Amino acid sequence: MSLDEARSWWLETPPGVTVVACSDDGTLLGSAKAGPNRPGRGSHVATASFMVTAAARRRGVGRALGKWALDWAREQGYAAMQFNAVAATNTVAVARWQELGFTVIGIVPEAFDSASHGRVGLHVMHRHLEA
Amino acid sequence: MSLDEARSWWLETPPGVTVVACSDDGTLLGSAKAGPNRPGRGSHVATASFMVTAAARRRGVGRALGKWALDWAREQGYAAMQFNAVAATNTVAVARWQELGFTVIGIVPEAFDSASHGRVGLHVMHRHLEA
Repeated sequence: MSLDEARSWWLETPPGVTVVACSDDGTLLGSAKAGPNRPGRGSHVATASFMVTAAARRRGVGRALGKWALDWAREQGYAAMQFNAVAATNTVAVARWQELGFTVIGIVPEAFDSASHGRVGLHVMHRHLEA
Repeated sequence: MSLDEARSWWLETPPGVTVVACSDDGTLLGSAKAGPNRPGRGSHVATASFMVTAAARRRGVGRALGKWALDWAREQGYAAMQFNAVAATNTVAVARWQELGFTVIGIVPEAFDSASHGRVGLHVMHRHLEA
C-alpha cells in the first residue's frame, strides 16, 4: 500500500477525524477514526474504526480508543454510534463494545472471510448517545 | 451537485458497475449500482443501490433493477447480497426485497431522518446467492 493509498484508506476528511494513541514515550499503540456512518439523512449516526498494534494488544488500547470515539461523537452532537462489521470471531471486541453500551442489532451471516476460521458472521452493533 | 460530484457519488469503479434502465423510447426510468459491500475479506458479499425517476414509480422498475443486481452479483460469483439501509418507512422497497428473497437481518433504530416521518429505522437486508 502506498502512502497515498493509506491516507485515503484511514485518514478521515471533515467532519470525520483520525487520531493516534501513543504511550508516554511516544510509541504508537493504535489509531481510531470516526465520522458520520452515512451521508445526508443518516449523518446523525456516527461510526468508528480502530486499529491496535500487535505489541500493544491486551493493554486496554482498544477500550481507550472506543471511549475516545464515544466522547468525540457525543461532543459533535451525534445521536448514536454504529459499528457495521465486528467479526463474530473477534470475541474480545464484541465483549468490549457490549461493555461500552453497544448492543448487537443483527449479524450478517458468513460476511467476513476469516483467515483462521473461514466465513464467519459480522455483527452490526449500535448504541444511543445521551446528550 | 456538480457533474463530478454526481459521478463520484453514483458511478461505481471496477469491480462495481452502474447501469441505467430506459423505456423502449429511450426515456430514463432509473439506475442501479452494484459492487462489493466491503473491501478485502468482506468482498464476497455484494451490495447495490437503486434510484427510480418520479415519473416511473409503481411500474416495476425497482423490481427489474433488483433482479438485474441479483443476476449480476451471481454471475460475478458473489456469495450474498446485502442492503445496508432500507428506510422502515419505504414499505414498498422492504416488501419488494422480501419478495426477492431478502430477510431483515436487523433494524438500526432512528438511523434515517425522514423528511415526512422524522427519525425512523434503517433495515439491514440480506440474501444468499445460489451458485
